[in-house]
Amino acid sequence: MRMALRLVRFRGAAGGRPRLGLEEAPGGDLVDLSAAEPELPRSMREFLEIGPRGLALAQRVLESGQHRVPRATAQLLAPVGDPEKVICVGFNYHDHCQEQGLKVPEKPVIFSKFPSAITGPFDDIVHPQDTNELDWEVELAAVIGKRGRHIEEAAALEHVLGFTVANDVSARDWQTQRNGRQWLLGKTFDTFCPLGPAIVTREAVADVHNLWIRCSVNGHRMQDSNTRHLIFGVPALIAWVSRFVTLAPGDILLTGTPAGVGVFRKPPVFLKRGDEVQCEIEELGTICNRVV
Amino acid sequence: MRMALRLVRFRGAAGGRPRLGLEEAPGGDLVDLSAAEPELPRSMREFLEIGPRGLALAQRVLESGQHRVPRATAQLLAPVGDPEKVICVGFNYHDHCQEQGLKVPEKPVIFSKFPSAITGPFDDIVHPQDTNELDWEVELAAVIGKRGRHIEEAAALEHVLGFTVANDVSARDWQTQRNGRQWLLGKTFDTFCPLGPAIVTREAVADVHNLWIRCSVNGHRMQDSNTRHLIFGVPALIAWVSRFVTLAPGDILLTGTPAGVGVFRKPPVFLKRGDEVQCEIEELGTICNRVV
Repeated sequence: MRMALRLVRFRGAAGGRPRLGLEEAPGGDLVDLSAAEPELPRSMREFLEIGPRGLALAQRVLESGQHRVPRATAQLLAPVGDPEKVICVGFNYHDHCQEQGLKVPEKPVIFSKFPSAITGPFDDIVHPQDTNELDWEVELAAVIGKRGRHIEEAAALEHVLGFTVANDVSARDWQTQRNGRQWLLGKTFDTFCPLGPAIVTREAVADVHNLWIRCSVNGHRMQDSNTRHLIFGVPALIAWVSRFVTLAPGDILLTGTPAGVGVFRKPPVFLKRGDEVQCEIEELGTICNRVV
Repeated sequence: MRMALRLVRFRGAAGGRPRLGLEEAPGGDLVDLSAAEPELPRSMREFLEIGPRGLALAQRVLESGQHRVPRATAQLLAPVGDPEKVICVGFNYHDHCQEQGLKVPEKPVIFSKFPSAITGPFDDIVHPQDTNELDWEVELAAVIGKRGRHIEEAAALEHVLGFTVANDVSARDWQTQRNGRQWLLGKTFDTFCPLGPAIVTREAVADVHNLWIRCSVNGHRMQDSNTRHLIFGVPALIAWVSRFVTLAPGDILLTGTPAGVGVFRKPPVFLKRGDEVQCEIEELGTICNRVV
């Protein structure tokens, strides 16, 4: 059974605890899964641990046409707020390697953010006092649906529940010049991982390696590429990372950013308070975050 | 009210779900907190989210003298299995900087492991096929008890629930020569973070900056130092890390290793299958893991 779903987390008009839901169509109204099935966990990670039975339940609620929530009354949250891992990949687009004069890497370069960096698809990015080089990176993110270690590339997509849009916000000074050149701190300030608007299940995506991917700052297009320019595609990345660690439901894998980041512009451009960053991937949706 | 507790997680003789408990004395019998208070969460992280009320409850159960479990019938688990963060510090003992000819760093160098690396205090360390340079690192670990960001050094210990023993197992080839010199992969293979045996609350520790700290491999003493040789003590590390991220209950902060790791021996010594690694810190306890 193919389940083309757009899973979301949201807060209703009255506030309260986060709820799980479904987007009826890209940018459309929501269906309140937590109202329809009050026994379900409110954490997307715990919901994904349930596996296919949970998804089948979600599908039935969607088809029921009940528990609809007008989009305008809901506050969308990051679709996963509490993953065990936020796994990130560097140097993974041909055009991004070119813009910094780098050879294409032979193997994926893996780093991480702490889950505390995750923020909602329309929430603010907090500009730390501590950086003068705040930068954007639109990225395709895969969400793991099934546990596994030593996963073969041919079976890798079975471990992926779906995809969402991420902004791998980066403080370049901290990433590359400080902290013993370990990237972690420059990548993991609070709010440095806007995520959303929905997890679009892979059955709903025609070809994840042929989607346009774009980032605009204050309406000016800064990144404009296509996931066909990925060096290591999603199956290769899943296979690689699972050589080291067990992947678990809810884990987020950011697959790297294309050309057009601020630090490699001539002259460099960095984010300042008041800027608005919009990241968009074909079929997946748009996130938009103000820098404060 | 000072609560000198030794919090553990364990599985009983009949197996089943992990349980929360208390160690009556170092290496002594356990008290089954989950049997005494079945409503409590089974996750240490969730238990710590409850705050002082949960600890007061634990104290009362300990004092009741009931629900005792003989040590020999219990399998001790890592005291926290599902933290949001495993935060690690490099180059943080004077003697460890000396052994590699490094100047003392001006600021802490921060990296991370994924929580999936955590394993129990007496569980096996799985030697990956993928490395020829498996190494040990005994470390004092602080466990966060109270949420905070931008924490002042003077108030930092209020955010620490207690301390435990960690082994920051490292694949040196992956840490320093591969993955674009990002340490993450070499530090985060599954089972690369043995932890335990208990969280010893800070009220039970006379002076956390004056504890001997030791590591033996197959009975041969390899590391033998004292936490007084830490470059950045626990309050300075808490203050530093919280400049970047919000610390949350259950977060684990590994504070770095002293001299005597395998890679800087002449000639270098690495772990092989069958080796037994014992890490021990005064007042906190001992963990012992076989390499398989």
